[in-house]
Amino acid sequence: MSQDPLVVFTPSGKRGRFPAGTPVLTAARQLGVDLDSVCGGRGICSKCQVAPAYGQFSKHGVTVEQDALSEWNKVEERYDQKRGLKAGRRLSCQATIQRDVVIDVPPESQVHRQVVRKAAAVRAIEMDPATRLYYIEVQEPDMHEPTGDLERVARALKAQWGVEDISTEFSTLALLQPILRKGDWKITVALHKPDDHARARLVTAWPGLHETGIFGLAIDLGSTTVAAHLTNLDTGEVVASSGIMNPQIRFGEDLMSRVSYSMMNEGGAAEMTAAVREAIDTLTEEIAAEAGIETGQILEAVFVCNPVMHHLLLGIDPVELGQAPFALATSSSLHLRSVEMGLTALPGSAQIYVLPCIAGHVGADAAAVALAEEPGKSDDLVLVVDVGTNAEILLGDRDRVLACSSPTGPAFEGAQISSGQRAAPGAIDAIRIDPETKECKFRIIGSKFWSDEPGFAKAAERLGITGICGSGIIEAVAEMRMAGILDPSGLIGSAEQVGTPRCVAEGRTHEYLIHDGTAHGGPRITVTQGDIRAIQLAKSALYAGARLLMDERGVDKVDRVVLAGAFGAHISPKHAMVLGMIPDVLLEKVTSAGNAAGTGARIALCNRAARREIERVVGEITKVETAIEPRFQEHFVAANAIPHATDPFPELSQIVPLPMVSFNTGGDEKGGRRRRRRA
Amino acid sequence: MSQDPLVVFTPSGKRGRFPAGTPVLTAARQLGVDLDSVCGGRGICSKCQVAPAYGQFSKHGVTVEQDALSEWNKVEERYDQKRGLKAGRRLSCQATIQRDVVIDVPPESQVHRQVVRKAAAVRAIEMDPATRLYYIEVQEPDMHEPTGDLERVARALKAQWGVEDISTEFSTLALLQPILRKGDWKITVALHKPDDHARARLVTAWPGLHETGIFGLAIDLGSTTVAAHLTNLDTGEVVASSGIMNPQIRFGEDLMSRVSYSMMNEGGAAEMTAAVREAIDTLTEEIAAEAGIETGQILEAVFVCNPVMHHLLLGIDPVELGQAPFALATSSSLHLRSVEMGLTALPGSAQIYVLPCIAGHVGADAAAVALAEEPGKSDDLVLVVDVGTNAEILLGDRDRVLACSSPTGPAFEGAQISSGQRAAPGAIDAIRIDPETKECKFRIIGSKFWSDEPGFAKAAERLGITGICGSGIIEAVAEMRMAGILDPSGLIGSAEQVGTPRCVAEGRTHEYLIHDGTAHGGPRITVTQGDIRAIQLAKSALYAGARLLMDERGVDKVDRVVLAGAFGAHISPKHAMVLGMIPDVLLEKVTSAGNAAGTGARIALCNRAARREIERVVGEITKVETAIEPRFQEHFVAANAIPHATDPFPELSQIVPLPMVSFNTGGDEKGGRRRRRRA
Repeated sequence: MSQDPLVVFTPSGKRGRFPAGTPVLTAARQLGVDLDSVCGGRGICSKCQVAPAYGQFSKHGVTVEQDALSEWNKVEERYDQKRGLKAGRRLSCQATIQRDVVIDVPPESQVHRQVVRKAAAVRAIEMDPATRLYYIEVQEPDMHEPTGDLERVARALKAQWGVEDISTEFSTLALLQPILRKGDWKITVALHKPDDHARARLVTAWPGLHETGIFGLAIDLGSTTVAAHLTNLDTGEVVASSGIMNPQIRFGEDLMSRVSYSMMNEGGAAEMTAAVREAIDTLTEEIAAEAGIETGQILEAVFVCNPVMHHLLLGIDPVELGQAPFALATSSSLHLRSVEMGLTALPGSAQIYVLPCIAGHVGADAAAVALAEEPGKSDDLVLVVDVGTNAEILLGDRDRVLACSSPTGPAFEGAQISSGQRAAPGAIDAIRIDPETKECKFRIIGSKFWSDEPGFAKAAERLGITGICGSGIIEAVAEMRMAGILDPSGLIGSAEQVGTPRCVAEGRTHEYLIHDGTAHGGPRITVTQGDIRAIQLAKSALYAGARLLMDERGVDKVDRVVLAGAFGAHISPKHAMVLGMIPDVLLEKVTSAGNAAGTGARIALCNRAARREIERVVGEITKVETAIEPRFQEHFVAANAIPHATDPFPELSQIVPLPMVSFNTGGDEKGGRRRRRRA
Repeated sequence: MSQDPLVVFTPSGKRGRFPAGTPVLTAARQLGVDLDSVCGGRGICSKCQVAPAYGQFSKHGVTVEQDALSEWNKVEERYDQKRGLKAGRRLSCQATIQRDVVIDVPPESQVHRQVVRKAAAVRAIEMDPATRLYYIEVQEPDMHEPTGDLERVARALKAQWGVEDISTEFSTLALLQPILRKGDWKITVALHKPDDHARARLVTAWPGLHETGIFGLAIDLGSTTVAAHLTNLDTGEVVASSGIMNPQIRFGEDLMSRVSYSMMNEGGAAEMTAAVREAIDTLTEEIAAEAGIETGQILEAVFVCNPVMHHLLLGIDPVELGQAPFALATSSSLHLRSVEMGLTALPGSAQIYVLPCIAGHVGADAAAVALAEEPGKSDDLVLVVDVGTNAEILLGDRDRVLACSSPTGPAFEGAQISSGQRAAPGAIDAIRIDPETKECKFRIIGSKFWSDEPGFAKAAERLGITGICGSGIIEAVAEMRMAGILDPSGLIGSAEQVGTPRCVAEGRTHEYLIHDGTAHGGPRITVTQGDIRAIQLAKSALYAGARLLMDERGVDKVDRVVLAGAFGAHISPKHAMVLGMIPDVLLEKVTSAGNAAGTGARIALCNRAARREIERVVGEITKVETAIEPRFQEHFVAANAIPHATDPFPELSQIVPLPMVSFNTGGDEKGGRRRRRRA
């Protein structure tokens, strides 16, 4: 008796012998090959496509003949006519094994396919979402079988998919009967299963085979902006990204002013909760419209946010977060449903996952950054700084990870800056100042030209020159310092002191004129002494936080720095270091991670194991509380100078000359006298 | 070495030896004695009171000396001063064992105490509710321990009560922080645990020791009325009972007209859902006010109802229940929370349990009747009839139980009756007609006097004589039949035919005058021919349903009949049998079970095991569908006569003479000619 045919699957290399006539999908299932299927082998979903390989495969010891698989059957022909099957592809539920064969499972047919992240640091996310689709055929009711429709759905799931036990969303129950009848007892259900051992929950259902996909939102809920990535839960593809201002800004620009608002105003917390939930509803509708999908297809959302936003999102008064010991109402991750959170744009049964908080001042956003950047897996000592209204700072390597947050305020996001604005077309995002002439050139968002290049005028006419965004103000201040317009203490010199009419007196201080658009009805864009002070406060807070972690760790330098945050990606490392935002380090060791918190949210959205991972990691992070640490104040004061009053910046001094000027007319250095020295 | 002292607990008889100095509560716990404690042995809740017995106990072989237990300690003294401890009682968490002792656990200190039901059939409910209170002392947060307040609550529950793992109501999370601080880190939490293996859910919390109790609502949601029992979840005591009209009556008096309303009107089902939920909110507020408790103390509700009410309560369109095969959206029991059901008077985290449905026409109310009356445990063949707008009928014994429902319409509840009204003070609820004079006497609700007795006039002046309630109309029709005013076909005779001026012509038919209050501004109360027809339709439906079950079971008589339903308790068995509502049976074998559906709801509220029990039993009941069974129509037509056209009523004929009259003037028996014959 000859042996059963051998089947080898690639890329897994899993192999086994099966009787001739066994469907390829069945063989794959039995071998534990990662091969998708939504319709359960009915030849309609096409998720189980495979590519048989023919010829000699010495590596596998197999020669595959042309008749190794069965001929196309009617189901495959019909599918091909209707939808078209790629050349060389077969539906694995239809094609049966006839002789020895090597079968490749292309990435798009794998359940646990890897998705390449768009961020600068290319890393893959393995798809293993909590919510999946199952196509089932349900027994019709009859008079002699008085079980309910739901009970027959559960029976079909058990018989056709081996799903043992389901719970059902109460609100979904009301939808099931018309959907079953519309689909003629063939439906697709979405089941949510937070982990393999958990009971599956029936989230929603569609008549027939649901082919337009299901989606999840990864939401980074910041103090100033709410950013969302709409992600296909099957492919992991980000189909749309969008942002919206956090409307809570009207209650207070920074976190502590929102906590105060809640303390001072009866019902203030509830007002802020309602505002942010409404913004999330708006964002959900906008992003769905942008991607051309129904909001009803969005079945999951993952939130990352700082503790105050966390509490306000959840409807918990953040008052305890405004005073020591900064007790969180809960620090664990949360699983809840959209309806419980009072969100209206998402289906009520959509599953919400909120990442765990690290401590009362170090939130789920820091946890998300840790998930995305994995400092705990770094061989060298990395400082991860997520720049925002509240900065999340992580320092660590394989040995130990420390975390804190620091209240930088909204200056880095363009708020509290006289000509500040959001990063939007027309905003100045890059500036260069000539150290000799003190003249400047700049670029605006939406154009690639510098303002002294021929193409700029046309772009400016179209976009306007409307203000300075966060990365623009950082460059402006750093360039002013490099050009000797600003002294280390942060004072802007006068026109005489600096030697340029661009330095204009404004009361007892001075401002530096970048662009005067008033002749054409545009704004006059300057950097004022107040702007400098705001940036100094922000960068000092950031630096002091990083230093505090370095103290705790017992080091005075780090190996590398990762700038994260929606805005972190746009910061020029050199300018950030001139400003003294970050500790001195080799310039090429400063990288940008984009919106790491948002990426962390996306990872948690796409992969269930990542949720367990971050829940574990959070417990191992050493939390450092900046608010009660006396050294934080010392570090903060010392970091007020640009780049720093006491810390040497040896790496920086190798590449950037910093003029030693002083414009303090009250001391023994007189106004007008300028000394220049290479640092 | 002498032995450790022996402790014997009564009534359980559990015994064991413990080292001198062991607290009585500790000994009880180790022996598995059923002894309550909410505060966990802190001497403040007083739930663990015991009564030591002194003297010689030959049965136990123990002599108990006066110093068998420790002296009162300060905690007991303080408790006694503050609250008073009954003579002979000790706090078992404070009193320690010194010498051999016999300790009685009084019923009120038992967790699984038995509660005697108020209903006619005295049966006990063992208390084992799903929601219980736990007093805990929670560790305060500090800067070095950044876990959330919730996590520290969970830790306290584990350490102090051995509760391993809790989930938390999202809405409760927001309450926890202020409660912890108000209670100075000592709080009482309510945990819901549907069964021993389930994860406990933190439902709500109170600062300090919560001493005013927690409650549950057992709700019988009928087509016409909604009845609720507010039950103390600790003692099982019903602290208030109340009812409200089902406001869905405005959409249709019976179930099928409500299903039609939903079919004919877009959004009709949602309208009806909103109406009934609002009524439940009102009822909840009223019943809480009546009992003098806060609605926030009501942490559970159990619903029983027929399938159409079940779907409308849950927000499911009942359209499928209006047509074969009468498919339920779900037949299983349901566990959900108040907020999911859109109830607003109960706390959002209150747990709702809905009993399972038996079939598309046999609902959770029938399941509740089965739970309360347990036909499946009966030695003889019992017919249980729950009389309402829709009657639930069960027939069975230890061998097998069958069930059906029958659309009786609201006539038995006083609706569709010309002088009909709800059972309320002033309503006629009992009538007697003299067979010779054809004069009648009656009683009204709120007075014990018959209308021919001296005290009646004063009562009538106070209460009014306002109409006839359900039990009154049944008696009126049966008495009219017995007095020869009504013939077997249901025709009322004329004044000449009957020989009394109380028979008054009304168009082509006649009516019987019970009471004319018009001289004093009151109503004229009569039984019209239309009223008789309505009662005939209702009783025929009931009887036909019972007969259909008897056919299925292959019997033509039953051993006993239980009349259930809020109104069933008030029906006179003799009159019901004269009417032919129920099959012929020995009169003393007809008993009343009060509101058995409501009792079933109360049992499910107080005892978790009862829920598992009825979920199992429901699967074993044989469902009989009246709507598609041709014999139902035959039975219905034959049952139109009073008492019946063909079935003999031998038991009835032994006790009640039924005159053989006929008032049909169209046939060969002429008007005015009356024959009287003993049946």
